[in-house]
Amino acid sequence: MIGGGLVAYADSKSDHAIASSQVAPKKKVVVLGTGWAGTTFLKNLDSSLYDVQVVSPRNYFAFTPLLPSITCGTVEPCSIVEPIRKIIKKKGEIKFWEAECFKIDPTSKEVHCRADIGTNLDGNDEFLLNYDYLVIAIGARVNTFNTPGVVEHCHFLKEVEDAQKIRRSVMDCFERASLPNLDEEERKRILHFVIVGGGPTGVEFAAELHDFVTEDLSKLYPMVRDLVKISVIQSGEHILTMFDKRVTEFAEEKFQRDGIEVKTGFKVVEVSDKNITMANKSTGKMSVPYGMAVWSTGIGTRPVIMDFMKQIGQANRRALATNEWLRIHECDGVYALGDCATISQRKIMEDISAIFKVADKDNSGTLTVKEIQGILDDICIRYPQVELYLKSKQISDIVDLIKDSKRDVEKESIELDIEEFKRALANVDSQVKNLPATAQVAAQQGNYLAKCFNKMKDCEEHPEGPLRITESGRHRFRPFRYKHFGQFAPLGGEQTAAQLPGDWISIGHSTQWLWYSVYASKQVSWRTRALVISDWTRRFIFGRDSSRI
Amino acid sequence: MIGGGLVAYADSKSDHAIASSQVAPKKKVVVLGTGWAGTTFLKNLDSSLYDVQVVSPRNYFAFTPLLPSITCGTVEPCSIVEPIRKIIKKKGEIKFWEAECFKIDPTSKEVHCRADIGTNLDGNDEFLLNYDYLVIAIGARVNTFNTPGVVEHCHFLKEVEDAQKIRRSVMDCFERASLPNLDEEERKRILHFVIVGGGPTGVEFAAELHDFVTEDLSKLYPMVRDLVKISVIQSGEHILTMFDKRVTEFAEEKFQRDGIEVKTGFKVVEVSDKNITMANKSTGKMSVPYGMAVWSTGIGTRPVIMDFMKQIGQANRRALATNEWLRIHECDGVYALGDCATISQRKIMEDISAIFKVADKDNSGTLTVKEIQGILDDICIRYPQVELYLKSKQISDIVDLIKDSKRDVEKESIELDIEEFKRALANVDSQVKNLPATAQVAAQQGNYLAKCFNKMKDCEEHPEGPLRITESGRHRFRPFRYKHFGQFAPLGGEQTAAQLPGDWISIGHSTQWLWYSVYASKQVSWRTRALVISDWTRRFIFGRDSSRI
Repeated sequence: MIGGGLVAYADSKSDHAIASSQVAPKKKVVVLGTGWAGTTFLKNLDSSLYDVQVVSPRNYFAFTPLLPSITCGTVEPCSIVEPIRKIIKKKGEIKFWEAECFKIDPTSKEVHCRADIGTNLDGNDEFLLNYDYLVIAIGARVNTFNTPGVVEHCHFLKEVEDAQKIRRSVMDCFERASLPNLDEEERKRILHFVIVGGGPTGVEFAAELHDFVTEDLSKLYPMVRDLVKISVIQSGEHILTMFDKRVTEFAEEKFQRDGIEVKTGFKVVEVSDKNITMANKSTGKMSVPYGMAVWSTGIGTRPVIMDFMKQIGQANRRALATNEWLRIHECDGVYALGDCATISQRKIMEDISAIFKVADKDNSGTLTVKEIQGILDDICIRYPQVELYLKSKQISDIVDLIKDSKRDVEKESIELDIEEFKRALANVDSQVKNLPATAQVAAQQGNYLAKCFNKMKDCEEHPEGPLRITESGRHRFRPFRYKHFGQFAPLGGEQTAAQLPGDWISIGHSTQWLWYSVYASKQVSWRTRALVISDWTRRFIFGRDSSRI
Repeated sequence: MIGGGLVAYADSKSDHAIASSQVAPKKKVVVLGTGWAGTTFLKNLDSSLYDVQVVSPRNYFAFTPLLPSITCGTVEPCSIVEPIRKIIKKKGEIKFWEAECFKIDPTSKEVHCRADIGTNLDGNDEFLLNYDYLVIAIGARVNTFNTPGVVEHCHFLKEVEDAQKIRRSVMDCFERASLPNLDEEERKRILHFVIVGGGPTGVEFAAELHDFVTEDLSKLYPMVRDLVKISVIQSGEHILTMFDKRVTEFAEEKFQRDGIEVKTGFKVVEVSDKNITMANKSTGKMSVPYGMAVWSTGIGTRPVIMDFMKQIGQANRRALATNEWLRIHECDGVYALGDCATISQRKIMEDISAIFKVADKDNSGTLTVKEIQGILDDICIRYPQVELYLKSKQISDIVDLIKDSKRDVEKESIELDIEEFKRALANVDSQVKNLPATAQVAAQQGNYLAKCFNKMKDCEEHPEGPLRITESGRHRFRPFRYKHFGQFAPLGGEQTAAQLPGDWISIGHSTQWLWYSVYASKQVSWRTRALVISDWTRRFIFGRDSSRI
């Protein structure tokens, strides 16, 4: 038996069957990326079931929501990162390779990796991994919308290194503006900090920078403090558009009081070394001199993903499309989650005839209320937009929705033919929305996928998912469902806005304390938790650090 | 009177007279450098007496003795730096310019500075400062002894950035050596860490790295931990040659137990990307493969100092020569201290005739004991080698020294002619030694010079220095006298060796605690003190951080 197991193990590369006995080899899982999605997946995976390998150019997980705090020295870089090897060590036999995946080959089930780090390490740095299951969680890159000069002159705020560079650059600007041989115009230019993009990251950075200037730097650079200007350029009509109007209004008013200029309706069209040119529909182009610019306007696709999408016929998309189980439909055993993927939710109208057929158990050509209720749970799981639609219409039961199209009939004796059924559900798909590219979504996806992997074997035999509409039987798993726990928008001066589930809005100092406690509790390890809290304490006692290191 | 003062102020560039009345303009002091010497000078200077300007490319002071701790994440960079603006803010009106001095012009009393930092700040970055007093404290640069390949392939350990780079590089080596596509030979090469130079910095880094590997990395990289090798290459016969033999022996034995290879008697002659070539008198050349090398072999002269030395006729020197008052003899109002300068101690034999003349008050051609004792204090202050010589001979009184050359005569009735006097003091100058290039020396010099500047006016009227031997009157100040408080050599494993004054040697765990308390107490601010202590605590609880940031 043991010998047989060993032979099977040696053959495992070409063996794609599901592990069904103790001696069968473990399936190979390759995870690309150690961000929110990848790390949460690894943390929750039962790694004894698989042969797991992780590839990432960063050997650590970074708590990205605190990146804006690093830019101004409120929190130290080491406090928000945790070595991935420490995280996986607790899980047993997971292998980690510090490298970048530059090609995914779904036909031969291989990923090509390159480790181009270090200076005097030689060129033989490419290697190949093969997989049974591939989990793509490599995130996104910055989207410059091909605006000229952005790559050369703007800072980004996606990685820890970016935040460290911004911090040095802010200090450079202050030191530079303090030099003896400049005129006032030039000092003003150098101290004009521009943030392009009025999303949560840009707004938080603007607020953090404002606090840094007023609370710390104004004491150290008294001769130039009145020359500082912070501007936020936003193409839309308002900043923080993903938040409720009350939050947006509060933020815009607070920024106005703080002297942070918010230029809405402006699109940046070019960045040179000293000027940012922007355009507005009514006023046309205008150019403003600046000292430092941070570009924070949404995300783009990484080259390796673009290449992969071309291979699988998903060219011209912004991100990898997966089904509701985070699986890529076009290839076997490949999953994608986090910022590099979007779930393309199946529309109910595409399946409406099949649904009718499945529900119509007596093949009568019409559906009774009882027949509809018999399939309702499965429908709601498979098509979450149904529930969202009912909620948006403030209807509690699907029967009430149906009743709308059959006004005159008693509830119990409703019978719908296929056209009436279609008409009742016609607008449901309008509730299909893409999930935002946030840490919260990525973490929930990682967690979900790990749980699926953990019960893969069980669910082969006892599927727990909804009815398959177009085929027979049931789906193995319930589809991924995002649960929104709310979102914070720190606005500076120890004030934070939060939009919590149920449209509950909370703004002010108490929300800042909520922010502190949520962010502390969400840390990946006790070490980073202790460090982040001690950094906050240090900031309260000693202020932020203004050394240019 | 006020108008007159203003006029005088406007003329102050060409006015070199000492400020003698309240309305006279303040003298301009320009300080170059914010290391140990410059910062200690600034901290102790009464800046209300002068118009002070500071020029340094670094806007912070770094506690350099903890640099080796940064290389392995034991202490965080931000914990050992203090913004110079915070230090000078407490002192009142001191101006700081973040720039580099690239030319000193002692004739026109000007320094030329350049601020070449930042990316999109324009080219008009040179400016000129004029001074009445110039304090040069810009430290030294690394000395590669023109060894080929060192600049390209070796790390240094002089600045905070260097330490950060080393930290990243150590992690790179471990990640790289863990990759799947390498053979054992290559893994071994990558994990061979070479330290060139067996001085305190090199030895401390080797010890720190060894601890990092055994205490932290071996858990995270179990598959490569047995391949790690640390080597120290030292050209001399022993490491830590500036310490007592007992310390050297203990260190060498401890390193042997720890598996750190110490190659003494080897001089590195070439460094390529993968090999270090070294030569030994008996065995000839040999080449060893390595993964990372740290070059830590003494200090060299910065270009601006070399240029300055040429101008003032000090070419071919290693460092700026000053007199015992830290003043540069060749030019007016220029002082140099710290690693960029050495004190050239006046030899007593050069002045021996003049000393005899001054001492011989009755012009009798011979010196009585009383006459010698009358000048003895001044001699001991002016020529500290006298006291060192007496100490080395275990003689308590100079009269006993003289008695050696006049054996038959009673102590009270000794009379020396000039030849006998010369003979008695003939070997005294052998005790003249250069001070080591340490933080301790630089800090004491900064402190000394600040005190001199503070009492400049008083001392013009009431000089407190020793008798001028070749001229009349007294020196304004007592010359600088270095007081050695001992030196630490951390050897890893919570063991430190210390050589304290009076040749008191202390080795072991208790010395490590002495080290902790001395280094904590020597921090420049309460902020850095708190941070360093919290870093140490964090290391005890959570270990060192191994993220490659």
